[in-house]
Amino acid sequence: MNKSDKALIVLSGGQDSTTCLYWAKQRYSTIETITFDYGQRHRIEIESAKKIAALANVPNKLIPIDSFHALGGNSLTEDAIPVKNETLNNGLPNTFVPGRNLIFLTFAAAYAYQKNIHDIITGVCETDYSGYPDCRFNTIEALETSISLGMEFKFKIITPLMFLSKADSILLAKEVGALEAMAFSHTCYNGVFPPCQTCPACTIRATGFRVAGIKDPLIARIEQKN
Amino acid sequence: MNKSDKALIVLSGGQDSTTCLYWAKQRYSTIETITFDYGQRHRIEIESAKKIAALANVPNKLIPIDSFHALGGNSLTEDAIPVKNETLNNGLPNTFVPGRNLIFLTFAAAYAYQKNIHDIITGVCETDYSGYPDCRFNTIEALETSISLGMEFKFKIITPLMFLSKADSILLAKEVGALEAMAFSHTCYNGVFPPCQTCPACTIRATGFRVAGIKDPLIARIEQKN
Repeated sequence: MNKSDKALIVLSGGQDSTTCLYWAKQRYSTIETITFDYGQRHRIEIESAKKIAALANVPNKLIPIDSFHALGGNSLTEDAIPVKNETLNNGLPNTFVPGRNLIFLTFAAAYAYQKNIHDIITGVCETDYSGYPDCRFNTIEALETSISLGMEFKFKIITPLMFLSKADSILLAKEVGALEAMAFSHTCYNGVFPPCQTCPACTIRATGFRVAGIKDPLIARIEQKN
Repeated sequence: MNKSDKALIVLSGGQDSTTCLYWAKQRYSTIETITFDYGQRHRIEIESAKKIAALANVPNKLIPIDSFHALGGNSLTEDAIPVKNETLNNGLPNTFVPGRNLIFLTFAAAYAYQKNIHDIITGVCETDYSGYPDCRFNTIEALETSISLGMEFKFKIITPLMFLSKADSILLAKEVGALEAMAFSHTCYNGVFPPCQTCPACTIRATGFRVAGIKDPLIARIEQKN
C-alpha cells in the first residue's frame, strides 16, 4: 500500500481510537496523536493513551481542557452525578457532554494546522449504542466544513469506524494489528481497573469481542496477572 | 418592538461585543453573557466584560480555556511573541489563534444548550481589518450547522456587525445606547490601560470613531481622569 503523508489521530485511550491509530499506521508515513485531559473522572484513559502511543512508537500530545467542568451538568466530568444506563429527558444518556467531540476535533484541527497536517482521524461511530449526535456522520461532515473554512486550511476528518458494528471494529483491530495495544486500552465508564464489567461501555465492549469471536486482550492481561 | 425570548451574548469586553449586548437588550427579554478566560495577555478584557455586564444588568459567566497555551504559537497568548502589524507566511496577522472563534462559539453553544437558549450573538465582523477566517460569514454559517447537528439543538448564530464598517458599527452602538458602557470596553492588543494608541486594534478603533464623528467614550473617560 502506498502511504500518504501525515495524519493526526485523536487518541482517547479507548479501544476505538487504538484501532484507528493502527489503521493509520498502515496508511500514513508520519503519525501524530493528540489526547485531551478534560477533567474526565476516568483519568486512567490518559495513561492508557500514553502507553498505547509509546507501544505504537508515535508522539502523543496532551492538551488540557478545563472548560467542561465550568460548563457543568454531566456525569463524565462531575463526581456528584453517577453514570447511569437511564437516559435524560432529551433521550441522551447522562454521560452526554454537549459538544464534546466538536471541541476535541476543533482543538485537534488547531494543532494539526500548526503541524501542517490535513488528515485528522477519529474513532467516532454512528452505530455506537449511545447515540451521541456529535458522533454522527452528518455532524462530522459539517464540522469538516466549518473547521476548514474557519482556519482556511483543507481538513479531512476520517472516521474508519463510522458505520461498523462493535464486533466489526474489533475484527478490523485484529486486521490492522491493534490487538496487542488494546490490552492497555481503557473503556469502562466507571474509570476503574480492572474494568467494572457492568457499565454500558464495558457491556458493549464485552459483547463486541464475544460476537467477533476474539478474546479481549485486556481481559486476558488481567487473567494472566491473577 | 416585540422582544424575542432568550439570547446568549459572547462578551469579550471589546467595543463590538458591547455593541452586540446592547443591540440584544433591545430585542430579547432575557439575556445571558459568556466570557472566555483563555490566558490572553490582555487580562484587562475580562475585567471589562464583567464591568460592562454589570452596567447592563445581565449575568456574566466566565469560562476558563487553558488549552490555547498548550497548543502554542501565537502572540495573543504567548508573552514571548510580540504583537506585530506584519503578517505571517499564511497572510494572517501573528495575533491569529487558529480556531479561536470556533472554540468560543462551540463552548458558548454548549452553555446555551444547558440553558435552553437557541440564539447566540457574537460581534464578529467580516470587514474587520484582520481578515481572520473564523470571523467570516460562511464560516459562521457552517459552524451554525455543525453545532446544531452535534448537539441536536437548533442554534442560530446572530452577527449584527458582520458587514458593517467600524464607523457604522460605532453609529449602531450609539443607536442602541451602548456608548456609555463602551467607556469601559477594552480594545488594545497590547493589553494596557490607557490604551497604547499605536497597535492595529487601537488604530482601527480610533479611525472608526473619527469617521463616525463620535468622541470615543473611553478616551473621554481617560481625559476626565487627568
